[in-house]
Amino acid sequence: MTEPTTARVRTACAIIVGSEILSGKIDDRNLGALARTLRKLGVRLDRAVTILDDRATIEREVREASARFDWVFTSGGVGPTHDDVTIEAVARAFDEAVVVHDEIDAMIRKAYGERVRDAHLLMARVPRGARLVRSADVPWPAVVMRNVWVLPGVPEIFQLKMRLVEAEVGATAAFHSLSVFSSLDEGHLKPMIDEVVASHPAVDIGSYPQWTEPVRKTKLTFDAQDRAACEAAREAFVALLPEGALVALEG
Amino acid sequence: MTEPTTARVRTACAIIVGSEILSGKIDDRNLGALARTLRKLGVRLDRAVTILDDRATIEREVREASARFDWVFTSGGVGPTHDDVTIEAVARAFDEAVVVHDEIDAMIRKAYGERVRDAHLLMARVPRGARLVRSADVPWPAVVMRNVWVLPGVPEIFQLKMRLVEAEVGATAAFHSLSVFSSLDEGHLKPMIDEVVASHPAVDIGSYPQWTEPVRKTKLTFDAQDRAACEAAREAFVALLPEGALVALEG
Repeated sequence: MTEPTTARVRTACAIIVGSEILSGKIDDRNLGALARTLRKLGVRLDRAVTILDDRATIEREVREASARFDWVFTSGGVGPTHDDVTIEAVARAFDEAVVVHDEIDAMIRKAYGERVRDAHLLMARVPRGARLVRSADVPWPAVVMRNVWVLPGVPEIFQLKMRLVEAEVGATAAFHSLSVFSSLDEGHLKPMIDEVVASHPAVDIGSYPQWTEPVRKTKLTFDAQDRAACEAAREAFVALLPEGALVALEG
Repeated sequence: MTEPTTARVRTACAIIVGSEILSGKIDDRNLGALARTLRKLGVRLDRAVTILDDRATIEREVREASARFDWVFTSGGVGPTHDDVTIEAVARAFDEAVVVHDEIDAMIRKAYGERVRDAHLLMARVPRGARLVRSADVPWPAVVMRNVWVLPGVPEIFQLKMRLVEAEVGATAAFHSLSVFSSLDEGHLKPMIDEVVASHPAVDIGSYPQWTEPVRKTKLTFDAQDRAACEAAREAFVALLPEGALVALEG
């Protein structure tokens, strides 16, 4: 799956194990980091689900997503405490046991030295058959089970692991995104948008009201892996705008 | 469903219609606002799914969630352009037609006056049988179809609608959340956490490493609708901490 062998767009799903997000204690910061990484790689993130730290729920989501998408990324639930059940859930999703990975065990013992506790070593558990992905600049490995990346929820570490995702998942054609800001609202722009949507079916066109912006009232986005197609769609749209309605271009 | 008639905890699901989030263009801001609102009302947000602006996908998610949860909240896809398909999707999820709501139609005509366009009036469409929820301080109504709130994605408007949710969904016992910050890491704390988890099963206990905090290394949270139970669990945990390991209490 790391080789770009076909033109089919690769797809992905994020599973955010996040009782702390669903209870409003913190806002998620990992989905955006993952989305932007995958965009550069030409992988389309089709779905993200945020669920409670519940073993059976994670297991069901991982099983379904692993079958449906090329790549799955879990975030959270990989520490040593009672609410960290992602490793066990991923193992069960593939009908595998949880085993201690000797290499991670050795790394933990080395890192903690005399301060090591049994609980620290719980972080050496992986689903049987999981592989470790690492690099020279990210020596602490990421655990990957089949097409499922099991990533930590701590944002700083999650973001660090994105480098491993980039190297391992690999890039086909990145998605490009161009924008237009207009002083007209969506109601006035709709006939022009519809015309470009119809004439440029290969470009994904989005329209977003900018509620708090007095001048840049609407943002139009033109996305595709083919940059020339994005540019052509945007030019076609700009050509339809009445005088004075174009405020800015981006990208 | 607005009357707290039983002790069963009410549940909710968020469906975020968000191609712009999955493509990494913007970060969601509505899930946190919804989560914190529901927490105050004593409603447990069990699940949030972020999906593409795709009619069939939204329809499937709404149908499933409406059957499984007490309340469902959609965010986004309610404007007048081609990528705004949430109203149609919600209607289909309940096998209903999309109809023009005369009252919203009149409000739009009044708001836009001579500048009104056909596209503006598209925003008067609702699933047949939907009701409007409004209040003196939030006169522009929210559309509610059975147990599904169809809310706009623009964060400022979404947040404004939370006042309507508070009034309509109503409060049973709010969830309380108390915290402890410790200078010990999760590996060292685990035996103490396990003891309190076992002795306080009615309290939801969470443990979160604070990766960038040199002193407040771990945050423990104690959540329940019964505040006294939260306090008892936290006190039991604090009593187990070795000297110097308690950094701060919150909540």
